[in-house]
Amino acid sequence: MAQNIYDDPTFFEGYSQLNRSVHGLAGAPEWPSIQAILPDLTDKKILDLGCGFGWFSRWARANGAGEVLGLDLSEKMIDRAKQETNDDEVEYQIADLDRVDLPEAVFDLVYSSLAFHYVEDFDDLVRRIYRTLRPQGHLVCTIEHPIFMAPVSPGWSEGKEGVRIWPLNQYSVEGKRTTNWLADGVVKYHRTLGTTLNSLIHNGFRIEHLNEWSPSAEQLEEMPALEEEMDRPMMMIIKAQR
Amino acid sequence: MAQNIYDDPTFFEGYSQLNRSVHGLAGAPEWPSIQAILPDLTDKKILDLGCGFGWFSRWARANGAGEVLGLDLSEKMIDRAKQETNDDEVEYQIADLDRVDLPEAVFDLVYSSLAFHYVEDFDDLVRRIYRTLRPQGHLVCTIEHPIFMAPVSPGWSEGKEGVRIWPLNQYSVEGKRTTNWLADGVVKYHRTLGTTLNSLIHNGFRIEHLNEWSPSAEQLEEMPALEEEMDRPMMMIIKAQR
Repeated sequence: MAQNIYDDPTFFEGYSQLNRSVHGLAGAPEWPSIQAILPDLTDKKILDLGCGFGWFSRWARANGAGEVLGLDLSEKMIDRAKQETNDDEVEYQIADLDRVDLPEAVFDLVYSSLAFHYVEDFDDLVRRIYRTLRPQGHLVCTIEHPIFMAPVSPGWSEGKEGVRIWPLNQYSVEGKRTTNWLADGVVKYHRTLGTTLNSLIHNGFRIEHLNEWSPSAEQLEEMPALEEEMDRPMMMIIKAQR
Repeated sequence: MAQNIYDDPTFFEGYSQLNRSVHGLAGAPEWPSIQAILPDLTDKKILDLGCGFGWFSRWARANGAGEVLGLDLSEKMIDRAKQETNDDEVEYQIADLDRVDLPEAVFDLVYSSLAFHYVEDFDDLVRRIYRTLRPQGHLVCTIEHPIFMAPVSPGWSEGKEGVRIWPLNQYSVEGKRTTNWLADGVVKYHRTLGTTLNSLIHNGFRIEHLNEWSPSAEQLEEMPALEEEMDRPMMMIIKAQR
């Protein structure tokens, strides 16, 4: 069973104040890159894994989707998602991605934003996602980048000649990483990029796109703080087809 | 046209003394991982891009391949490969991977070991490889890992609490990297892993396997120096199918 740190008052309070929680998709700098690779949503049935406040679920419906099911482990997030949504074709349920049973061959798109790095057995989740997709259905997801997750002491440091460096180590040592982010003791599971892609491939997916997200020139001009993202990616965007 | 540093006497002398040049495939710790994903070679026609001393070309023939063509920019390496080979079905030619014209739908396997990071226009090379493969033919290659190639100042450093770190930066800044390895001023081309895989995908390949190589427990026991490879991968192994 997954750690439910998300309902911890400190975590939830911090989460609620994130730019992407307040402003939704517009507050997530990777969103234009995700949007560019989404399949056509018209009349499609969509599953949003780790839906949080439901920003994507609502967007998908507003952009043609037929039905959306959003799942999240956090009661507080699901409550908030329900409050923010006024649409009979968007449903939210509390569910643990580590073990939720998904119906067979039902969805056209499984979407997930920054949730899979909290899942311990990714291979098992991939198997369930594959099964719940219709043939030719897509998975589009963002995951924390293993470069970001791997280090024993993540955080910027100063390298030779005062240049900013990301102190990478333990990249090939997979497993639990415990960090203090929004609350103390948040557990994530580090996997190499190879392990993540191979899980998708050997469960039957075809990899269609991999974007180790970095800001565009326009975004760098608007938000100079994003310059750090040029030094090491924080997340990756994957598109795969059943 | 590619930089021919390989025939520089200092580079060639250093290259000749590398474990993998002296002992061949057995001197390359990643070889067992490559061997595990090679397709059946029986009677297959193989192209070895950047064949060096021809170790793989000869191994492929000894393991069932029908014909092998090895290409390398270095005259000295091709001379040496020819000296070491006594087999009419193995041919070697001097060629620049940056622009060599490859015949259409001829090969069952294109193999390349640690050569593609010297190629400036990878997308163009991928197009030529795709074209020269027969339908369902494979590409199996190793490339320097972008984590290894990216930094402004590559080399181990000491991080917090004296722990070994790899000073990563500029990961998302693609392009030329000049390093001093075997000789001064060796030019390589850094591309993110996403860019490399997307080039393969949009040119028609299906990604079958990605291994960001790290040593096995047995290898670590035999060669403790390989422990560094657990902190950051030096190379990746890709298998893709036309």
